[in-house]
Amino acid sequence: MKKFMNEVGNVMHESLSGFAHCHRDIVALDSDYRYICRAQKKTGKVALISGGGAGHEPLHAGFIGYGMLDAACPGQVFTSPTPDQMMAAAEAVDSGAGVLFIVKNYAGDVMNFSLAAELLPNAQTILTDDDVAVERSTHSMGRRGVAGTMIVEKVLGAAAERGDDLSSLKALGERVNGATRSMGVALSSCTVPAAGKPTFTLADNEMEMGVGIHGEPGRRRVSPVMSADAIAEEIVQTIVEDMGTSAGREVLLLVNGFGGTPALELYLMYDAARRQCEKHGVRVTRSLVGNYVTSLEMAGCSITLTVLDNEIAALWDAPVHTAALRHGM
Amino acid sequence: MKKFMNEVGNVMHESLSGFAHCHRDIVALDSDYRYICRAQKKTGKVALISGGGAGHEPLHAGFIGYGMLDAACPGQVFTSPTPDQMMAAAEAVDSGAGVLFIVKNYAGDVMNFSLAAELLPNAQTILTDDDVAVERSTHSMGRRGVAGTMIVEKVLGAAAERGDDLSSLKALGERVNGATRSMGVALSSCTVPAAGKPTFTLADNEMEMGVGIHGEPGRRRVSPVMSADAIAEEIVQTIVEDMGTSAGREVLLLVNGFGGTPALELYLMYDAARRQCEKHGVRVTRSLVGNYVTSLEMAGCSITLTVLDNEIAALWDAPVHTAALRHGM
Repeated sequence: MKKFMNEVGNVMHESLSGFAHCHRDIVALDSDYRYICRAQKKTGKVALISGGGAGHEPLHAGFIGYGMLDAACPGQVFTSPTPDQMMAAAEAVDSGAGVLFIVKNYAGDVMNFSLAAELLPNAQTILTDDDVAVERSTHSMGRRGVAGTMIVEKVLGAAAERGDDLSSLKALGERVNGATRSMGVALSSCTVPAAGKPTFTLADNEMEMGVGIHGEPGRRRVSPVMSADAIAEEIVQTIVEDMGTSAGREVLLLVNGFGGTPALELYLMYDAARRQCEKHGVRVTRSLVGNYVTSLEMAGCSITLTVLDNEIAALWDAPVHTAALRHGM
Repeated sequence: MKKFMNEVGNVMHESLSGFAHCHRDIVALDSDYRYICRAQKKTGKVALISGGGAGHEPLHAGFIGYGMLDAACPGQVFTSPTPDQMMAAAEAVDSGAGVLFIVKNYAGDVMNFSLAAELLPNAQTILTDDDVAVERSTHSMGRRGVAGTMIVEKVLGAAAERGDDLSSLKALGERVNGATRSMGVALSSCTVPAAGKPTFTLADNEMEMGVGIHGEPGRRRVSPVMSADAIAEEIVQTIVEDMGTSAGREVLLLVNGFGGTPALELYLMYDAARRQCEKHGVRVTRSLVGNYVTSLEMAGCSITLTVLDNEIAALWDAPVHTAALRHGM
């Protein structure tokens, strides 16, 4: 294992310290490392809190700030944070309008966030489960929550900023999640620092179609590696079929890097995915390409489509000011 | 070689097409793929043009837009663009105030940009050579131009936007380059698509200290891999010594990923570098962490310090709206 680190046990704290210092105009780190929150608490709105295992950066802490999250709870790499972290985060950022937890659908996260929500006076939870690759996995009952999570966070963030109440936000979040589908592909594994060896192995000519963001198995092992066009064709077709009728629809297209794939390839894959969308009569009117929901240094990417209506598009376009996503201000 | 691509010969065109479509609100791609320029030509200012071999994305095309570049000329991966590309780009974006070429110090780039500058009526060239690792390399006479190049582009971009003339911009560029020093370290090689095999090889316990952004050799091969703190100590000390007296100075600290290193590790390295700066009495007042000047999928990073004065700091802070760097608008 070759990584930039000092002691394995300190990776999270040192990385969080660096993140918090680098972005100290936007975020503040709890002195016990339980959560990261906005540097200036925003009152008069529902507090949006997410979190989950580390290793998916910039998700979630990179999305804290105006127009997106109020706080995030980091677990150890690929390990759920604990309910006390979520309680502490809620206490820090709830200004009286309640708390909405945005939770990726993994067993540990669901259990811990649900427990925290039960213990809080005014908290709701919304689950993201946008991964169409598999119907259940080693880590989840039902579909996994993957890159579409950041789209839910962005849209809900804008809606919370304009003053939507807790029940409206929960309904909107379910609507955005329901309009969002993703599927990924890996060309290499990642290595969890505490494990010290790759999560899985791929031969020099193999790829994993439908991989999860923790390196969970996907649909099948493919050899040799498919062309970018063939990969995009399979993923876009799977997503479009799962959506039901789609011709004429407007979508947001997100090509999300898993951490180890260069921008040169991500933009090439975006080009391939966009052409596939056109073949299905789906119009790409919003786009995002980059490393947003990663799996440490895994080589690979996912393709996400969100079907847009006027409201979701406007909320996507609304100003945002976070470490990892910024526009309009 | 495992990469997202179709035909090796089409990688650049497909990636550029994807980039241009994704960011069509900001950039436009020449129909012959010779250059990328702003979607809306900006008149009444000096045109800033950069370029170089591909494989360093988002450099340079990701920095086209308000407050930074007017155009960029992409070569094939790690290969200089040609003078006709630079001439065409200049023709497209020069609005009468002249052209400044910002050129990384590599033999091919220097030769081709200089030739284009000679052929144009009102063009100047500024070279970046911020890499303190080696005094000359396989690709350059003198120091190499690396991640500091994007700082020069940002500062000059803001100055051009406020209306500085060509000779002032050239002088400012030389001042910013002179205030900027970088050094990198690689944990893995990268693979140029047309070559099909890694540029160099590192054993499982080796790293390359002082590596160049094309995988050129650095100062030495190190085994085993050093701790993040030890790496940061050596690099920051090398930079600070090369600067001369530095205590009390304010700096911009850029921790730049080479493409294959996850954000978790880059922020940890930022934390380590910041602590080393403090030890030297250097105050980090501006920060940037991420993949900005990459080497395809190389695992590794570089650390850059730019000594700030009031003018450079203000120009760094000025609004910018590009695909890869955006704030204040």
